[in-house]
Amino acid sequence: MNPLMTPLEAGSPADDGRAFRRSLGQFATGVTVITARHGEQWLGMTVNSFAALSLDPPLVLWSIRRESGALQAFQTAGHFAVNVLAANQVALSNRFASSKADKFGATPWTAGVHGAPLLHGAIGHLECTLHEVVEGGDHLLLVGRVERHARFGGEPLLFTQGRYAVTQEHPEALQADAGAAPVAVAHDVSRGTILRLLHHTSNRMSQAFLGHRLAEGLSVAQFRIYGWLRDQAHTAEDLKRLAYLGGRDADDTLAGLCEQGQLTRDDAGCYHLTPAGRERAQAIVRHVEAFEAELLQEVSEADLAATRRVLGLLAERTARSVA
Amino acid sequence: MNPLMTPLEAGSPADDGRAFRRSLGQFATGVTVITARHGEQWLGMTVNSFAALSLDPPLVLWSIRRESGALQAFQTAGHFAVNVLAANQVALSNRFASSKADKFGATPWTAGVHGAPLLHGAIGHLECTLHEVVEGGDHLLLVGRVERHARFGGEPLLFTQGRYAVTQEHPEALQADAGAAPVAVAHDVSRGTILRLLHHTSNRMSQAFLGHRLAEGLSVAQFRIYGWLRDQAHTAEDLKRLAYLGGRDADDTLAGLCEQGQLTRDDAGCYHLTPAGRERAQAIVRHVEAFEAELLQEVSEADLAATRRVLGLLAERTARSVA
Repeated sequence: MNPLMTPLEAGSPADDGRAFRRSLGQFATGVTVITARHGEQWLGMTVNSFAALSLDPPLVLWSIRRESGALQAFQTAGHFAVNVLAANQVALSNRFASSKADKFGATPWTAGVHGAPLLHGAIGHLECTLHEVVEGGDHLLLVGRVERHARFGGEPLLFTQGRYAVTQEHPEALQADAGAAPVAVAHDVSRGTILRLLHHTSNRMSQAFLGHRLAEGLSVAQFRIYGWLRDQAHTAEDLKRLAYLGGRDADDTLAGLCEQGQLTRDDAGCYHLTPAGRERAQAIVRHVEAFEAELLQEVSEADLAATRRVLGLLAERTARSVA
Repeated sequence: MNPLMTPLEAGSPADDGRAFRRSLGQFATGVTVITARHGEQWLGMTVNSFAALSLDPPLVLWSIRRESGALQAFQTAGHFAVNVLAANQVALSNRFASSKADKFGATPWTAGVHGAPLLHGAIGHLECTLHEVVEGGDHLLLVGRVERHARFGGEPLLFTQGRYAVTQEHPEALQADAGAAPVAVAHDVSRGTILRLLHHTSNRMSQAFLGHRLAEGLSVAQFRIYGWLRDQAHTAEDLKRLAYLGGRDADDTLAGLCEQGQLTRDDAGCYHLTPAGRERAQAIVRHVEAFEAELLQEVSEADLAATRRVLGLLAERTARSVA
């Protein structure tokens, strides 16, 4: 068998629910908050099981757990609005994924045609009437008919492999742009634009680092959890927020590390590294340091300082032009 | 009204189908190829309307146009496999989105439990029996029960705002890692790791460039189409491939630019810039050059050369470590 065809995990969903969820998480999605008005009550929940369904008639769908407390209210409301979140709305996504009572207090919004909250800062709004409800195992599928849509400037927030992420242009597209537009460029390092070179190098380094982390047998969630617990114990809630992890994936990872004897959970709900966990965390630090040092081998102090100056200046100038 | 709440476009789906599709495109998705075996025939099509539906029972869904030639075969096959594509599988995605007869010839694959092709290099496989077919306007929703799943290392291919893209770590998560792991870092340019600084600067520059492009009133698709047509006429098929654009979005953009008198289409199906289109294309080039020049103002030749050397070296070393 082709070595590229060796899975990290495989099996029947019935055998290991966590492993099945991790396989589902390979499909990247945007993040939405679905809202509605139900009498005097505002409903809002974070959902990534959204999909476009039909253009004519204009239909979209999302799914909700059967046991969700908000299900009945969404059904009787008879409408909903889909708010497609922007890359800078992680805190908003976390708030609407929680069971907090007042989710709308800290969030500027405007009422849509059916009274559903349209969240400011979202990159898309779809205002829908509830068209149909379809049974779907432990979830229900809510199909909406879109009455009004709006699109705003900005980049989408992503959820992929258990964590929040952002998009970047496809590296091959940038390479292809080289033939067409002067903003992107040749492979020759001495020529071409800095934007292209930065993009290319940043991509390569991230990939190499990912390879390094995988070689250590670490997922992103594990890597970040070891890092955050090194200096201090944290609750699951804190770790999700600090490490930009999705709720379910963070819970699965914490449970797995406890089973492996790397973590313990105290009565206050805080997670601590065990002696074995601490040893592993320190080994990870040493490996990361060695990875960086190896890449920078034989680079002169002067060149490194110049690179830092130029990158710093570019970051500063683009920060201004963004604002 | 908050200026951030001014939409680029808004309205009823009935008024402008293209604008509605662009609003739907704000929700980012992964890309899948759905395959099946139907008698002696292999079926395969590129689909981004996939979603997870239920964990217990394990259900997933995707939708197919009513008028699709493959619909009946998928229904009678009674099973399908979902192949979640990796970031480097754009050509594969384009092939399975086309109407080419032999899509499987150029693609290594293995037959799954029901005979559906499992494509090599995908980052996820979900082998399903067809559980239910639900009416959904101009599409049908195919719900599958997952019998076997597999997960592979690698990053997902994305489709967002009409084009292919890839993921990158959330910049705030990297900043947050600073407190936890030494790989990521302080805001002080003179300290912290190069990986973090690169990531940060590359992000900022991309965002600034996006703002610049938006200020020009250009979408990514428009920007790339002007670029590719500057030197040579191309067919729609060529432009989709060269510019990493999705089929429908590229068609919509081309139709829009023709209506605005920027392009013409000849009898051979090639698109050409009109004199007005050529003038606009040249203005875009001048603006991009000015954007770059302004950012690099007062940077010494020596510093710029050092930066290029270091970035080039890092790209080269990480290329080796990836391979």
